[in-house]
Amino acid sequence: MSTLITNVHILTMDNQMKEYKNGYVLVEKERIVAIGDWQHQPLDADEVVDGNGGLLLPGFVNTHTHVGMIPFRSLGDDVPDRLRRFLFPLEAYMTKELVGASSAYAISEMLLSGVTSFCDMYYFENQVAEVCDSFQVRALVGETVIDMPTCDSEQPSGGIEYCREFLPRWKNHPLVTPVIAPHAPNTNTYKGLEKIVAMSEQHQVPITMHVAEMDYELKELSDRYQQTPFELLEQIGFMNRPFIMAHCIHATDEDILLTAGYRENVKVAHCIGANTKSAKGVAPVKKMLAAGLSVGLGTDGPSSGNTLDLFTQMKLFANFHKTWELDRALFPAKDIVRLATRGGAEVLNLKDTGIIAAGKKADFIIVETQSVNMFPLFDPYSVLVYSANASNVQHVWVNGKQLVKNHQLVNHDLREIKAKLYEQMSDFVVEAKKRM
Amino acid sequence: MSTLITNVHILTMDNQMKEYKNGYVLVEKERIVAIGDWQHQPLDADEVVDGNGGLLLPGFVNTHTHVGMIPFRSLGDDVPDRLRRFLFPLEAYMTKELVGASSAYAISEMLLSGVTSFCDMYYFENQVAEVCDSFQVRALVGETVIDMPTCDSEQPSGGIEYCREFLPRWKNHPLVTPVIAPHAPNTNTYKGLEKIVAMSEQHQVPITMHVAEMDYELKELSDRYQQTPFELLEQIGFMNRPFIMAHCIHATDEDILLTAGYRENVKVAHCIGANTKSAKGVAPVKKMLAAGLSVGLGTDGPSSGNTLDLFTQMKLFANFHKTWELDRALFPAKDIVRLATRGGAEVLNLKDTGIIAAGKKADFIIVETQSVNMFPLFDPYSVLVYSANASNVQHVWVNGKQLVKNHQLVNHDLREIKAKLYEQMSDFVVEAKKRM
Repeated sequence: MSTLITNVHILTMDNQMKEYKNGYVLVEKERIVAIGDWQHQPLDADEVVDGNGGLLLPGFVNTHTHVGMIPFRSLGDDVPDRLRRFLFPLEAYMTKELVGASSAYAISEMLLSGVTSFCDMYYFENQVAEVCDSFQVRALVGETVIDMPTCDSEQPSGGIEYCREFLPRWKNHPLVTPVIAPHAPNTNTYKGLEKIVAMSEQHQVPITMHVAEMDYELKELSDRYQQTPFELLEQIGFMNRPFIMAHCIHATDEDILLTAGYRENVKVAHCIGANTKSAKGVAPVKKMLAAGLSVGLGTDGPSSGNTLDLFTQMKLFANFHKTWELDRALFPAKDIVRLATRGGAEVLNLKDTGIIAAGKKADFIIVETQSVNMFPLFDPYSVLVYSANASNVQHVWVNGKQLVKNHQLVNHDLREIKAKLYEQMSDFVVEAKKRM
Repeated sequence: MSTLITNVHILTMDNQMKEYKNGYVLVEKERIVAIGDWQHQPLDADEVVDGNGGLLLPGFVNTHTHVGMIPFRSLGDDVPDRLRRFLFPLEAYMTKELVGASSAYAISEMLLSGVTSFCDMYYFENQVAEVCDSFQVRALVGETVIDMPTCDSEQPSGGIEYCREFLPRWKNHPLVTPVIAPHAPNTNTYKGLEKIVAMSEQHQVPITMHVAEMDYELKELSDRYQQTPFELLEQIGFMNRPFIMAHCIHATDEDILLTAGYRENVKVAHCIGANTKSAKGVAPVKKMLAAGLSVGLGTDGPSSGNTLDLFTQMKLFANFHKTWELDRALFPAKDIVRLATRGGAEVLNLKDTGIIAAGKKADFIIVETQSVNMFPLFDPYSVLVYSANASNVQHVWVNGKQLVKNHQLVNHDLREIKAKLYEQMSDFVVEAKKRM
C-alpha cells in the first residue's frame, strides 16, 4: 500500500526547519519514502490525496495525559478542594470497562485534533493498551503506582503487581510501549520507589511520573527527606532510567542543573494549560531548554486540561511564557510548533517520528487552511499557534495508515464510541451529581 | 416574522443566572417575547428551530477590536519592534476598499464564532459602518484620532475632521453607534484631547481609546504632565462622557479608585489575549471588578489577538487571572461566560441585550453540544470556557434575524468575501513580503 499526497505546504521540522510550499509526500507501508517540491514527478502510488493547500506537519505529541478520565470533564473545575471532593471519591466508580470506553473516546478526540502519539498514565492500563492497539495509534501507556488502594487494586501500590503481567505483555508491540508510572514522589514510599526503578530496569521499560507539581509535595519531601523531588529521584536511581517527568512546575535552578546532567534519559512533559487553570504556576521552561533538557507539551487529563488538543497548549504556552519572561520575542511560533511535534517525539523517545523526511515513520497531519480563522497565511507557524484550533485538522496518518479523513475517524464511529461511554458512565454520573 | 426555538439548554445570564435545561425561546420581530421550560405549549410561530440540545445564551460581545486589520494577521507576530517594522509602514497601504473588504471578512468571522456585537476602532470607519449595516450586526464604530498623518487623512488628527461628517451620519442608525476614538492619551495633543471630549458632547456619542496599554505611554505622560493616563483623562473631562477604555494594563490602585468614581460612564475593555501575547502584562481585573467597574472582554485586532472569537479570550482569562492571583477558585467559569456576554453588553451600553428574557432584543447564539470536545456536560459554563472553541457555534441571531445557520452565514458567501479581500490585498502583500 502506497499513498501520494500532493498540494501541501510541508513543515518538515528537520534541523533546518525546511519547508516545501508546494510539496508532496510519498508513503509506502509505514514509512515516508520521498518528499520534496511537487513538479509532477511520475510517481506511482495506490492512492493519491490532494492536500488542497493545507499545512502538512508531523503529528502532535501529547506527552502527558490520562485518557481514562473523560468522565470527570467539566466536573468541579473551579473548586479549591477538587481532588478530595471529586477526583479521589469518584475514582472508586472507575471500572475496567469505563476506562476502556473513556480511552476510546479520548483517543478519538486526540486523533481528530491531530495528536498521533501520547503518553498516558492511569489505572487498568491493559484496557488502554488494547484500545491503542485497536485504534493503531502510537502510545506510551503507564500503569499508576500509588501507596493507597485504587480502582484496580485493593492493596496499596498494587500497580507494581499489575505491572508484572502488564509490562511483558506489551513489551514488543509495534505501537504501544508499556510504562511504569509512579503517581508522584510523595505518594509512594521510599521502598516502593526503589522497587519501581528496579522493575523499569528488569523489564527495560521507561518510567513516567508527576514531579514537582504540588506545593505540598515539596513540603512533604522536605520534611521527610530534606530533599527536593529531583534530589530524591536522582538518589533512588530514576535519572539513570528513561524517565518522563510531568509538570516540574517548582523546579529550582539547582534542580534543573542536576536534571540536565541526565538529559539523555530524563525528559520533561510540560502541561501549561492544566498548571495555570489550577493556579499552580508556570514551569521554568526557558531555563530547562537553556540547560539542554528536552521538553514536550502535554494536555494533562480531560479533568485538568479539559481539551486534549495541542493547539490549546501552544497558544497558552506562547502567551504565558512571553508574559512570564516579559519578552514578546521569546519562543517564536516556529519554536512552539517544534516543541508540540518533534519536541514531544524526543521526550517520548519515539525514534523515527517527529520529522517529515524520507525514511521516517509516516505519522503526520494536514491542517486545512480554508477556514475563516486561517487567513492570511504569512507565517504558517503563527497561524498554527495563534489562530488555528482543533477543528482545523483535516487528515491524520499514523504509521502510514490514514486514521482521520476529512475530519472523521476512518475506522471508528464516534457516535457509537460516545454511546458506549455514556452507557458505562451511568453509576459514575449518579455519584458525581450527588457531589455537585 | 416570528421564530420558536425549542430543545435548548438556556443560560439566561439574568440576575439569578437562571437556566432552563429543556427550554424554548419565542422571538417576534427584533425581540424575545417569551422564554421558559418547554412543555409543548401551543405557541404560534412562522418558523420553528430544533436546537438539538445545544446551549442557548446571549451573543458574545467583543468590546475592542480593529476589523480593518485582517491583512496584518500572522505578520511579524513575535518581532519586538513590530509596530514600527510592520504596522505603521504597512498602514500606508490601507485603502477605503481594503478596510471595507477586511471588515466584511472580520465580521463574518466574528458572527461564525458567536459574536453578535462589537466595538471597533480604526480608519475609514464609514466603510466599517456600511459593512455593519449590510450584515445587520450591532456595533460601536470608532474613527481613530491620532496626532500624525494616517491612511485616511494627510493632516495629523484628521479623524476629528472626519468625525464631523461621520458622527451625525450614523447617529440614528438602529444597529450602528458612531464613536470617536482617540488612539491613546500619549499619541494626541492636550488640545486634541480637549476637542475630542467637546465633540463627544456636541454629538452625544461615546468615546473609546487605548488607555495604559504601553509602558512608554506612562513614561511619556509622566514626563509631559506628571500624571497617569487616568488622571490626565479625568482632568480633560473624558470621565464625564460615555467612555470605553481598552486595555488598562498598567492601572494602579489609585487609578482604579479614581475611575470607579465615574463607573456610570467609564467602562473597561479587557484584552487578555493580545496583552499577554505581546508580553505587556495582565490588567488588574479582580481589583477593577471589586471597585464596581464594568469589564468586558475584547479580542483586540486580528494582528494583535489573531482570533476574533471570545472562546479564546475566556480560556486565557481563566488561566491568567487564576494564576496571577494564585487562586483556582477565582473567576469560576460562570463568571467568565457572564463577562463575555452580559458584561460586554454593559460595557458597550447596549441596553436590552446581554440577557435572555422576554422584552430583550433577540441577540443570542446556540452552541452545539454534539462535538467530541463538548462531552460530558456536567457544567455548561465549564464546557464553554475550558473545552469549546469557535467552531462549536451553530446558530446566531442578531436583533431577531438569524445571521448564522448550521455554521454558515445566512446572507453572505464567505468565499466571495475572502476573494474580494484577497483581491484588495495585492499591494499590501507585496509590501508586507518585503518586510518579512
